[in-house]
Amino acid sequence: MNYPNGKRSTKQSHALRRKSKPDFSNRGMSLEEDISVTNEYYLNAGKAVVHKKPTPVQIVNVDYPKRSAAVIKEAYFKQASTTDFNGVYRSRYIDFEAKETKNKTSFPLSNVHQHQIDHMKAVHQHGGIAFMIIKFTPLDEVYLLPSPLLFEYWDEQSNGGRKSIPYSFIHEHGEKIPFHYQARVDYAAALDKLYF
Amino acid sequence: MNYPNGKRSTKQSHALRRKSKPDFSNRGMSLEEDISVTNEYYLNAGKAVVHKKPTPVQIVNVDYPKRSAAVIKEAYFKQASTTDFNGVYRSRYIDFEAKETKNKTSFPLSNVHQHQIDHMKAVHQHGGIAFMIIKFTPLDEVYLLPSPLLFEYWDEQSNGGRKSIPYSFIHEHGEKIPFHYQARVDYAAALDKLYF
Repeated sequence: MNYPNGKRSTKQSHALRRKSKPDFSNRGMSLEEDISVTNEYYLNAGKAVVHKKPTPVQIVNVDYPKRSAAVIKEAYFKQASTTDFNGVYRSRYIDFEAKETKNKTSFPLSNVHQHQIDHMKAVHQHGGIAFMIIKFTPLDEVYLLPSPLLFEYWDEQSNGGRKSIPYSFIHEHGEKIPFHYQARVDYAAALDKLYF
Repeated sequence: MNYPNGKRSTKQSHALRRKSKPDFSNRGMSLEEDISVTNEYYLNAGKAVVHKKPTPVQIVNVDYPKRSAAVIKEAYFKQASTTDFNGVYRSRYIDFEAKETKNKTSFPLSNVHQHQIDHMKAVHQHGGIAFMIIKFTPLDEVYLLPSPLLFEYWDEQSNGGRKSIPYSFIHEHGEKIPFHYQARVDYAAALDKLYF
């Protein structure tokens, strides 16, 4: 509703603006976004320092217009050689990948890439904590799966093993990640139980 | 010299090709490239898992041509919120930034950004090892400076302190990083002396 002065009522424009903000329910945001919000909260609360790595891009051509920012005109996506997130928590190096599945009964290993496994194995060997955060979207449940449990299934796959990890296994041996108002994917709470 | 068949002599084209390869002397490559070569060596030797973070880019427009790779047509450089390198070494989280200076007598603090200091302070508080690798290019000398020594100079700056760290201070209190045939910037050797 517009007032004679041409401005929207404050009430209405507030409501409109609110639409583009996160609504703090557990729906609508991707797992990755939820984790980034969590990381920001952890950082501000002095709890952990964890960042998402930028998407690797091969830059081929850049334009430098006068009086404005450089524009990348040609670039290509590169294969990452690591996982998406790493940082430091309670003096330990932590490193993880986040994956969502629409499946209710298992987590398909086709979601994982060999280079991610190689990287997590190296991290594990060097004394870091490597893990996977898995969200079963239809169940709205999120789990932390320590990397050695993932490696078991991954390595069995090429020996005629199954191509997915059963939900029941993850439910039993993984650590369920609680939803927390500010730490939307409160993986630090799960790490506390598993590693500290 | 071209032969009648229109091909260059093998000898000559070898010599030409060799130019674009690293020649394993300590010259010609940037500090950052030398560190990336070192990281690759550390990874393959099972010594450490350290990677350079990709340049953060805001992608605006992507073209998906048929039968070929996606092309980023418009993107912009974003400000990084961390340092360039991080990883795990001997079970510790390590995090660092690499800087070269053409100066012989001091390292100008203008090479460092506030967000890098903030990040290194957070890492240090969480029990990670944060440091700076500084190369005095004209001297061909590389040093590891533990972040607390950097913080001292950084924080003094705004209290009327100097705007650079004297070479003599870095030479005395930093750890000189040896050149090693494969680990061209052998910072792990310097970490061993300082932290383990």
